[in-house]
Amino acid sequence: MSVGRRVLLLSNSTLHGAEYLQHAYEDISKFLKERGVSRILFVPYALKDHDGYTSKVKRVFEKWGYGVSSAHEEKDPVQAVKDAEAFFVGGGNTFQLLKALYDGKLIEPIRKRVLEDGIPYIGSSAGSNVATVSICTTNDMPIVYPPSFAALGLVPFNINPHYLDSNPEKHMGETREERIRQYHEIPDSPPVVGLREGSLLLIEGDRISLKGNQCARIFMP
Amino acid sequence: MSVGRRVLLLSNSTLHGAEYLQHAYEDISKFLKERGVSRILFVPYALKDHDGYTSKVKRVFEKWGYGVSSAHEEKDPVQAVKDAEAFFVGGGNTFQLLKALYDGKLIEPIRKRVLEDGIPYIGSSAGSNVATVSICTTNDMPIVYPPSFAALGLVPFNINPHYLDSNPEKHMGETREERIRQYHEIPDSPPVVGLREGSLLLIEGDRISLKGNQCARIFMP
Repeated sequence: MSVGRRVLLLSNSTLHGAEYLQHAYEDISKFLKERGVSRILFVPYALKDHDGYTSKVKRVFEKWGYGVSSAHEEKDPVQAVKDAEAFFVGGGNTFQLLKALYDGKLIEPIRKRVLEDGIPYIGSSAGSNVATVSICTTNDMPIVYPPSFAALGLVPFNINPHYLDSNPEKHMGETREERIRQYHEIPDSPPVVGLREGSLLLIEGDRISLKGNQCARIFMP
Repeated sequence: MSVGRRVLLLSNSTLHGAEYLQHAYEDISKFLKERGVSRILFVPYALKDHDGYTSKVKRVFEKWGYGVSSAHEEKDPVQAVKDAEAFFVGGGNTFQLLKALYDGKLIEPIRKRVLEDGIPYIGSSAGSNVATVSICTTNDMPIVYPPSFAALGLVPFNINPHYLDSNPEKHMGETREERIRQYHEIPDSPPVVGLREGSLLLIEGDRISLKGNQCARIFMP
């Protein structure tokens, strides 16, 4: 029997003027503490510089008292996923991240760990996009071609991170809202949560809570 | 022997406060007049409502004295491409547009018409993205999955339409510049032109001119 998923999805990792992940410290700590996590497996593939990215993430999580391993330093990343106590999947380019998860055959193992074993998953920006049904509502440029846009499917909706309201003063291409509505013209597209900077979604089993001090927008197909 | 390509790429079709395509009227007229075009073939696939989109485009081009046929109304769109005097490929969602061009087997015929027969090509926004090497620097959401990100390759560079300078006051995900630099970490990526709203690129043979009253940014790999 499933112990219930635990998923924490951040819109962004850096809030203007604050240190990396600092704005989410309390939510992340509480989230990890409830499952007694002492070590996280970091997934660095959204950026090219895996070593540099890992150092940055280690500095923060180690300061908070957690051990960190990075998937790219593991001899067998699939086994590392199977052994992980918790995942942190960092932001960057969503296409690059999803392609690396497919190329490394990590999609099913991560999915199984989170949905069947109840292993906590924290995602930020691109790491939040890949946790959802598909990456079809990312803001990123398609810099590499993944084998599919279908993602981990840890939650039954999509996210648009860094969600911005439109500025009626200025035309700058389609607004976010227009882009999401174009997506909803596609048959069988899921709901989309427009998650503003500073916001987090906490999913515990079938319960979803919005954290942070912003409201979110929910777009239905 | 090639008569030399003629390609006009608009950053956007609507400039704030003006009618559809109005800001580009002089450049478009001059461009079509030089080849004695009287009728254009419109490619409406970037938006779902092909009929509505075609009516909007017809109103404008007919007012300017051109006949308009839309590819979606043709029994044989490939033949229509082979017979066309000029193309106008409208904006909307770049992924949707490129997928439709692949699904309709229109990539090679359009490419041949423009590069070998010198048939004028006008693109706007998504229609400009698909004219380049690849759609890897579009701003659009990947709402459908095309068989490749490789595009028409009418010009040897990519475009980022609606190019925006970063706002140092506010973090809102990666800036355009950061996103383009992430793309340039990919081996063999082409140069990228950041084309601001109101700008147009005119490509005549191997000569490229920037039109409109904005400067453009050129990013080299």
